[in-house]
Amino acid sequence: MGIRLVQRLARHPWFQLAAVAASTRSEGRRLGDAVPSDVELASGAADLVLQASSGPFDTHLVLSALPADVAREVEPALAAQGHLVVSNASAFRADPEVPLVVPEVNPDHLSLLDGGQAGIVTNPNCAVAGLMPVFAPLHDAFGLRTALVTTFQAISGAGRPGPPASSLVDNVVPWIGGEEDKIAREPGKILGSVVDGRIHPADLVVSATATRVPVLHGHLESVSVELERPASVDEVKAALETFRAPDETAGLPSSPARPVVVVEGPDRPQPRLDRDRDEGMTVVVGRVRECAVLSCKFVVLSHNLERGAAGAAMLNAELATAQGRVRAQL
Amino acid sequence: MGIRLVQRLARHPWFQLAAVAASTRSEGRRLGDAVPSDVELASGAADLVLQASSGPFDTHLVLSALPADVAREVEPALAAQGHLVVSNASAFRADPEVPLVVPEVNPDHLSLLDGGQAGIVTNPNCAVAGLMPVFAPLHDAFGLRTALVTTFQAISGAGRPGPPASSLVDNVVPWIGGEEDKIAREPGKILGSVVDGRIHPADLVVSATATRVPVLHGHLESVSVELERPASVDEVKAALETFRAPDETAGLPSSPARPVVVVEGPDRPQPRLDRDRDEGMTVVVGRVRECAVLSCKFVVLSHNLERGAAGAAMLNAELATAQGRVRAQL
Amino acid sequence: MGIRLVQRLARHPWFQLAAVAASTRSEGRRLGDAVPSDVELASGAADLVLQASSGPFDTHLVLSALPADVAREVEPALAAQGHLVVSNASAFRADPEVPLVVPEVNPDHLSLLDGGQAGIVTNPNCAVAGLMPVFAPLHDAFGLRTALVTTFQAISGAGRPGPPASSLVDNVVPWIGGEEDKIAREPGKILGSVVDGRIHPADLVVSATATRVPVLHGHLESVSVELERPASVDEVKAALETFRAPDETAGLPSSPARPVVVVEGPDRPQPRLDRDRDEGMTVVVGRVRECAVLSCKFVVLSHNLERGAAGAAMLNAELATAQGRVRAQL
Amino acid sequence: MGIRLVQRLARHPWFQLAAVAASTRSEGRRLGDAVPSDVELASGAADLVLQASSGPFDTHLVLSALPADVAREVEPALAAQGHLVVSNASAFRADPEVPLVVPEVNPDHLSLLDGGQAGIVTNPNCAVAGLMPVFAPLHDAFGLRTALVTTFQAISGAGRPGPPASSLVDNVVPWIGGEEDKIAREPGKILGSVVDGRIHPADLVVSATATRVPVLHGHLESVSVELERPASVDEVKAALETFRAPDETAGLPSSPARPVVVVEGPDRPQPRLDRDRDEGMTVVVGRVRECAVLSCKFVVLSHNLERGAAGAAMLNAELATAQGRVRAQL
Repeated sequence: MGIRLVQRLARHPWFQLAAVAASTRSEGRRLGDAVPSDVELASGAADLVLQASSGPFDTHLVLSALPADVAREVEPALAAQGHLVVSNASAFRADPEVPLVVPEVNPDHLSLLDGGQAGIVTNPNCAVAGLMPVFAPLHDAFGLRTALVTTFQAISGAGRPGPPASSLVDNVVPWIGGEEDKIAREPGKILGSVVDGRIHPADLVVSATATRVPVLHGHLESVSVELERPASVDEVKAALETFRAPDETAGLPSSPARPVVVVEGPDRPQPRLDRDRDEGMTVVVGRVRECAVLSCKFVVLSHNLERGAAGAAMLNAELATAQGRVRAQL
Repeated sequence: MGIRLVQRLARHPWFQLAAVAASTRSEGRRLGDAVPSDVELASGAADLVLQASSGPFDTHLVLSALPADVAREVEPALAAQGHLVVSNASAFRADPEVPLVVPEVNPDHLSLLDGGQAGIVTNPNCAVAGLMPVFAPLHDAFGLRTALVTTFQAISGAGRPGPPASSLVDNVVPWIGGEEDKIAREPGKILGSVVDGRIHPADLVVSATATRVPVLHGHLESVSVELERPASVDEVKAALETFRAPDETAGLPSSPARPVVVVEGPDRPQPRLDRDRDEGMTVVVGRVRECAVLSCKFVVLSHNLERGAAGAAMLNAELATAQGRVRAQL
Repeated sequence: MGIRLVQRLARHPWFQLAAVAASTRSEGRRLGDAVPSDVELASGAADLVLQASSGPFDTHLVLSALPADVAREVEPALAAQGHLVVSNASAFRADPEVPLVVPEVNPDHLSLLDGGQAGIVTNPNCAVAGLMPVFAPLHDAFGLRTALVTTFQAISGAGRPGPPASSLVDNVVPWIGGEEDKIAREPGKILGSVVDGRIHPADLVVSATATRVPVLHGHLESVSVELERPASVDEVKAALETFRAPDETAGLPSSPARPVVVVEGPDRPQPRLDRDRDEGMTVVVGRVRECAVLSCKFVVLSHNLERGAAGAAMLNAELATAQGRVRAQL
Repeated sequence: MGIRLVQRLARHPWFQLAAVAASTRSEGRRLGDAVPSDVELASGAADLVLQASSGPFDTHLVLSALPADVAREVEPALAAQGHLVVSNASAFRADPEVPLVVPEVNPDHLSLLDGGQAGIVTNPNCAVAGLMPVFAPLHDAFGLRTALVTTFQAISGAGRPGPPASSLVDNVVPWIGGEEDKIAREPGKILGSVVDGRIHPADLVVSATATRVPVLHGHLESVSVELERPASVDEVKAALETFRAPDETAGLPSSPARPVVVVEGPDRPQPRLDRDRDEGMTVVVGRVRECAVLSCKFVVLSHNLERGAAGAAMLNAELATAQGRVRAQL
């Protein structure tokens, strides 16, 4: 994920990569030497020397792709030093005082930072990130009461080196540790409201089964939802097709033309064919049809490293910048 | 599927392969020359000459692995000639007067043949075949009201040559034509009752999403069920663990020691590791846990070519034989 | 392959797609309806109606991606009508009077068309196409006496639908029908000379083993060569690194900046990481080292659908155009 | 590999597993808890407590599946204590005083242990293990001068956890560190002679390219050989087909009926279809044909964990036992 952030920064119109931090084990190495050999970096980035993740850093904005346990220590310390930490880590996502933001859905949650410019801003779990541009317009239009989700998650969602090849040749692994709880918990927070400096989650029940499949990138999700108000298949499609980011998000550099599109091919979306739409930031929904048990069912595809991680964090950093929360220097 | 039937017959204690039929295109070829080069046949079987599927055949029992459209013409004609046709084809599964039988679950449905020994007996779709040894004990113990199913189906379930490699490298295909209807329709019939020479289906609602994954054999299914009566996770496991075939089925040659087992490993069942239990006839259930939306959820694995096709048909043929419905000669 | 040609034509600076032909079975269909659902076409192309492959066509230039048996009938007929047929088919590659051209290597072989503008021009087999930008500079610099080649060929090289998934999950298939003969025969012809209106092949012996591996695109080849004159590893690398297309080829629209590059990573080239260099037209060589049995060994990677098929044919059409052999109308 | 050894010992007629050693990190754990969850052990084996690899052990015979660097320290120490160490590690394979044995090929090399019953006995690298039952009869019959080998090696050959899935989806990796040197060096030693307590290697030149492919088990090798005396394809096949283990090896429990078989299918051997012959101990050769560059070429398949590791070590232990070199107690 950190690699995708570095690559996005290399071509970013607003931001510039000033420093890169890593575990103490890698401290002092050139970034270009520390990344796997199949990663290509812009030359400026390759020559950066890895610092300790505890800082100090000159920039006000810090993008964090730390493991959860490290993030739990480091991110509050950086926030206390005055940084705005935009984090992809799971450590503080469940904290009701820490914003968990998808800029197309709940940009107002950044108000939890109140006047301040310091603090932690998180983006959702990679499987949740693909669901939110679908859940949000359905919730607005029809009331989203419950969702049953089975995921088909890509290898790259597990970080590097990721799962061994021996587990995914002629096989599927029907379990990803900790994932189902995140999928159950995060959507309600994102669809919730800020009340007295805390998130009051929406009343939405999500039940998930998370699996790993031999796909490089792109999380596919089979989803059934129960809606409060009746909606035909055409009305559901229309709600998704007409969903647009709010104005403050729509113009951001990493904001896709459309947060979600609906495709009609009977066998789509497919990970390899549909994951890269709009640089991996557009969620693709297909097979929208009635569900005999709940209200409606469909298949969702999103790029786990872009919409689900690096792009999500970048979009949060851009939103915070547009809201005037980011300074050039600490 | 036909190949697996031939292989099962080669080692069968009761039956002997007397004739093999095929499409008119293959008629007259040696069976050993007609099968793909990676299939090994017993020498007797390899030398059989392929006949027309319309017969005539000397044996009373005919096992059919015909494509649905051919089965629709051929099977009734064979039944009219006095044959007992045990069929894996989907052509007549939905017919309320044709038994759709899983010998552990509804052996009594063979009574639709009434006194007669001629007729058609079908087994379920390969994805349904794995669900029934799970649904039946849950229905008996707690009342099964609804089920939401997402399948991860193996390549071999699509017949030969099956899906092209280009569709399943770095990919998953979230659609299998016609499959979801079968999964929705067949379980209720199997759990139903014989009333006046017709099946009266059980009141069970199933909603399915069927996908194809790059796995050779073994259909994995992510399942959530709604039960009429409250049941703890332990009670659900106990109902599955104590489920046994009725006596008339338990002793049949292709009947596994247990129709279903529950495994405890957090990441099990997995297709490659669990599909071959008891020659592919035992269904493996894992990850039994509460479902926040319905009552309970779990993962099911079954061998699509054995429990789901050849083994299912063979077990039906054995059951019919044990019930005295099969004669040596037509 | 035809699809890749259509896609290349959609963005081509010189050529415009005027007509598309297909088998009689598809005649009369819209091109957009005839291609697989995962192929995206420019809108103009999608609306073309498929004609019979026997023509008539208004354009002088015809690009052929016909199966070999159809090409054997159709291509000479089109040439007789005055067309210049640039063909990816294997039907006439072995004919000593038909040019088999790699524009970086033997552009002069187009002189076989003599003054004429009508005739057939072929490009090599997809595995040979990747070898030629390597063999040519080695032959020039050191004399290439023999080559031993083992290929790892991608799925897409077998056309659509290509090999079944069941053959390439947890497997490799060590045989591709007809391929090894082409790899043995074509390089010598391409490195040969035009004498009295026929190709006199170079005295080069190639022995190949061709295999299919579960890779989407990109043929990898393990190659050992015997050189007439001694050459160090550094000299071999230098010969490859300094190889450039002749002037008449270098400026063509589909000509890559470099026909071949040498990479130094110990585990490169790899199909997924290296196949797309310069739109798939640059061949990537790695692991250049001494061979204890012959002189030198290395690994070659090339994109089988671009350098190996559509890009190869396009480059031939461009070369013929630059040589003044193509008219706007028949 | 160690796991396969434990599984082979569980069903062995002569040997019994008395103790299992592991790295200090795992010392004190139950074997059943230390193996991956997909490994099934006999109940007696599962309850063994892991010891330090330095011993002490009560048994005279020690089977070593240690990493090379650990083996370099531990194995001589155990030999010095009087143990007979039968090792799959590469640490001492190149030592001219340590026997490198394939029981069908060079059982006499155990005489390097001279009268003694203590010492180290090694088996070859997994890719070499598959070559030797082919090279030995060719060398005997026609004189084997050179061999050019390209391997397609399975994932399981890299130990656990093995290569990451991300490297082998839609990809092949044309490099395995250290492997090519072993393939070059070991065959000559195995075909060599014992002279004055040292191996005098045969005059055989081998050049290898080693690659990793997405296959679970089974190393495929594309091989061209140069023979000193002319041999037709039929003579080569006959030499392989008539090759039998010497008497002292033929009756050993892990000795297959035939060390090598020749198959005729044009697309065989294939890893998934042919690796398990005779419990993975029979090497399968196919596609025997003339080589235009050297003398003859063919494709070899062998099970890397059985013929290539656990089975190889076990057969060595059995051979040493049959030669009276193994005592029940230290």
